[in-house]
Amino acid sequence: MENFLSVHDAASVHDLIGLAAKIKAAPLDYDKTGQHKTLINLFFNPSLRTRLSTEKAGVTLGFQVITMDMAGGWKLEFEDGVVMNLDRAEHVREAAGVLSQYCDVLAVRSFPELKDRDADYADRVINAFVKYATVPVVSLESAIRHPLQSLADCLTIREHRRSARPRVALTWAPHPRQLPQAVPNSFAEWMIHWGDVDLVIANPEGFDLAPEFTRGAEVVHDQAAALRGAEFVYAKNWSSYSDYGATADLPDWIVNEEKMALTDDAFFMHCLPVRRNVIVSDGVLNSDRSLVLQQANNRTWAAAAVLAALTD
Amino acid sequence: MENFLSVHDAASVHDLIGLAAKIKAAPLDYDKTGQHKTLINLFFNPSLRTRLSTEKAGVTLGFQVITMDMAGGWKLEFEDGVVMNLDRAEHVREAAGVLSQYCDVLAVRSFPELKDRDADYADRVINAFVKYATVPVVSLESAIRHPLQSLADCLTIREHRRSARPRVALTWAPHPRQLPQAVPNSFAEWMIHWGDVDLVIANPEGFDLAPEFTRGAEVVHDQAAALRGAEFVYAKNWSSYSDYGATADLPDWIVNEEKMALTDDAFFMHCLPVRRNVIVSDGVLNSDRSLVLQQANNRTWAAAAVLAALTD
Amino acid sequence: MENFLSVHDAASVHDLIGLAAKIKAAPLDYDKTGQHKTLINLFFNPSLRTRLSTEKAGVTLGFQVITMDMAGGWKLEFEDGVVMNLDRAEHVREAAGVLSQYCDVLAVRSFPELKDRDADYADRVINAFVKYATVPVVSLESAIRHPLQSLADCLTIREHRRSARPRVALTWAPHPRQLPQAVPNSFAEWMIHWGDVDLVIANPEGFDLAPEFTRGAEVVHDQAAALRGAEFVYAKNWSSYSDYGATADLPDWIVNEEKMALTDDAFFMHCLPVRRNVIVSDGVLNSDRSLVLQQANNRTWAAAAVLAALTD
Repeated sequence: MENFLSVHDAASVHDLIGLAAKIKAAPLDYDKTGQHKTLINLFFNPSLRTRLSTEKAGVTLGFQVITMDMAGGWKLEFEDGVVMNLDRAEHVREAAGVLSQYCDVLAVRSFPELKDRDADYADRVINAFVKYATVPVVSLESAIRHPLQSLADCLTIREHRRSARPRVALTWAPHPRQLPQAVPNSFAEWMIHWGDVDLVIANPEGFDLAPEFTRGAEVVHDQAAALRGAEFVYAKNWSSYSDYGATADLPDWIVNEEKMALTDDAFFMHCLPVRRNVIVSDGVLNSDRSLVLQQANNRTWAAAAVLAALTD
Repeated sequence: MENFLSVHDAASVHDLIGLAAKIKAAPLDYDKTGQHKTLINLFFNPSLRTRLSTEKAGVTLGFQVITMDMAGGWKLEFEDGVVMNLDRAEHVREAAGVLSQYCDVLAVRSFPELKDRDADYADRVINAFVKYATVPVVSLESAIRHPLQSLADCLTIREHRRSARPRVALTWAPHPRQLPQAVPNSFAEWMIHWGDVDLVIANPEGFDLAPEFTRGAEVVHDQAAALRGAEFVYAKNWSSYSDYGATADLPDWIVNEEKMALTDDAFFMHCLPVRRNVIVSDGVLNSDRSLVLQQANNRTWAAAAVLAALTD
Repeated sequence: MENFLSVHDAASVHDLIGLAAKIKAAPLDYDKTGQHKTLINLFFNPSLRTRLSTEKAGVTLGFQVITMDMAGGWKLEFEDGVVMNLDRAEHVREAAGVLSQYCDVLAVRSFPELKDRDADYADRVINAFVKYATVPVVSLESAIRHPLQSLADCLTIREHRRSARPRVALTWAPHPRQLPQAVPNSFAEWMIHWGDVDLVIANPEGFDLAPEFTRGAEVVHDQAAALRGAEFVYAKNWSSYSDYGATADLPDWIVNEEKMALTDDAFFMHCLPVRRNVIVSDGVLNSDRSLVLQQANNRTWAAAAVLAALTD
């Protein structure tokens, strides 16, 4: 694996999930993997789970881990050929080149602005780091994908599935703020490429994800229809792709006990942070069907598998 | 020891002080204590000494240490049952549950707001972490206590006492800002439960600490009376408990050379940061009776003892 | 070496460059240098390269490294004898004393304010830490010097020189903001004390550096004259020393291909971050004569040599 930006970077999704499971089962067997190697985590946006789980993965494998919050530093220039006499103090070409001198793996988080769809979907920041870095680049969530979350989700589903090919329902859910499509985009493409599940996506009209991510899945606008028979319910809010960045006030899309009763005794999943009683009811989240903590735990093992695969 | 929030968590105050002294004397003997274990430090408020001494303690014991500044991240919800559609992005139930997946000890700092006494004295933040975390929780100073400081103070007094049962005077001192009662509350309850000293507390009328912390100590409103015969003078400002959060402009309560002359050649103590020539005169702080640097040094060994006791 | 603030702290510039080269060639031979030792990096101003390269140097040598961003904390008082009843919560005397308890080497970055020349050139912050710390102090760039950058630059020149005594041209270059003189001051004094190069400095009239740093070098106001025959071109903007803090809008001082054609096929150097097409043209920076990434890489080995020399 050269970089880790999307499911397409994994030679085999099955093998990568398997590696995550193996490291989780015996982390001490892998504590020399990162010996004399350095991981730099670069955050252009805030993070709790991603930062901590990636740091934990790094130190578990024996990496030296350095985390850098770019919000406190200067702004980077991403355009080529410009006269840099405004507020951007350094070009990504130098920044990525320099950072590559100090580490063996460079992990980057950068969110979309949700204003210009073409700009966001060009995924400029992470791609600029890939272009100019001379070490492997890992996405800690880019403008349009969150692959470490999706890999952790695959592992979580593998650990809890009761049938060989479970029905997984990804459902849009309400949220007071405008959110990216990165998590659902990524979840959809991982489920589809993994191939071990049947994915159905439910969202309000006008909230269909970009077809490049959902091709191969069933997309419906009837939440109940999607939930019926599901073994896993994955809730997430996202803003509109077609009417780019638009939000909707649809409180009825909350996942509550009544909705879960439609499923095949499904597990509930969410990437966190989650708005209680907005996205999902207290009753569902506090029940023994909730896998949100297991998902968060698996973030560590997903990151560990990726770090191991990149430095093998 | 299950958690470390107050003196009541220590099975034996003597033994915990003794353990701190032992680690201080031979830190390399303890460098495997935290092997393959992770300590997460979570700061909702700024810190210099507490952060650095706790990190130093962690790495000295062989822990992997991850420090997280929560001021840069999102706000947590601490109320149960609310519809989270405002500015709080994550409930402490998830945050504490998730963080517990990434570490073996979770240390938390959270200050009071000094507006609503009942809310502050419920010590909601640290108690919510205790309720929802599945690993031991350490207070890095909560709304009403600062136990690591107090344990370091016990060790410092043990190292410098000249009599078997020294007189220790805790005195209120002036300060331009409104400060919590956490340090004096905690100091009082540790001195009293330790039982090796005679504690007298001097403060202006209206500044008596909460009785639950000072029961067993002498409380006077005459600073000179308290200082007379003292072997240790511990200065600290705090805002009022009875007229909650009120401050007072009483520059005469400064600890200066004249005041120290009343004592039994006492040592001067303060938890730092200290306002020179407001709390204490340059002359006292620069003299060889000042123990403020020794106290700061002992913060490391107090934290080390707590980490060792929690992961034993 | 007791501290590392300027070239004057190095017993031998040659030996220190040599040590950096040796560690770079075989870093694993030095991985016990910092064993059971702690390095604290204290940043009063933002940093990318300096922070990461110093952290990397520290962990490579086996140090425990703790980095602290002081912008998020309280303000320090640097004046002696003041009544601290305003916004400064802690005196550097306590801060430096306390930090010395937690580490074996204390590294500090603090920029000038560029308002009061005497205040800046007294280099008050770093000197206060030297005065009150009880461990070696390393400058991570002070108000008037950036010695780790200069040491890295010496190593870079040593690695790439074609003649025994190359001509090195330090040239002022345009920049939209007001910048310190720390980098050129330091570069000049290191080149001069090293003694292995002929240094010529070109800058607009009114931009001569302080004579204490440039004595022994040729100073000219004709950029072309300086570049002619140069084997290394070191570009940097700085604000005026004589008309303190003044800037100048002189776009013609850019280093571009035409200017480089005047040189003896020179290498281009800059400490980064660099404004493309303001300081230097894309063509020069993208060419194989650019050493900016090599300089950044050598920051690690310069810091490693200093840490090794200080804790020997």
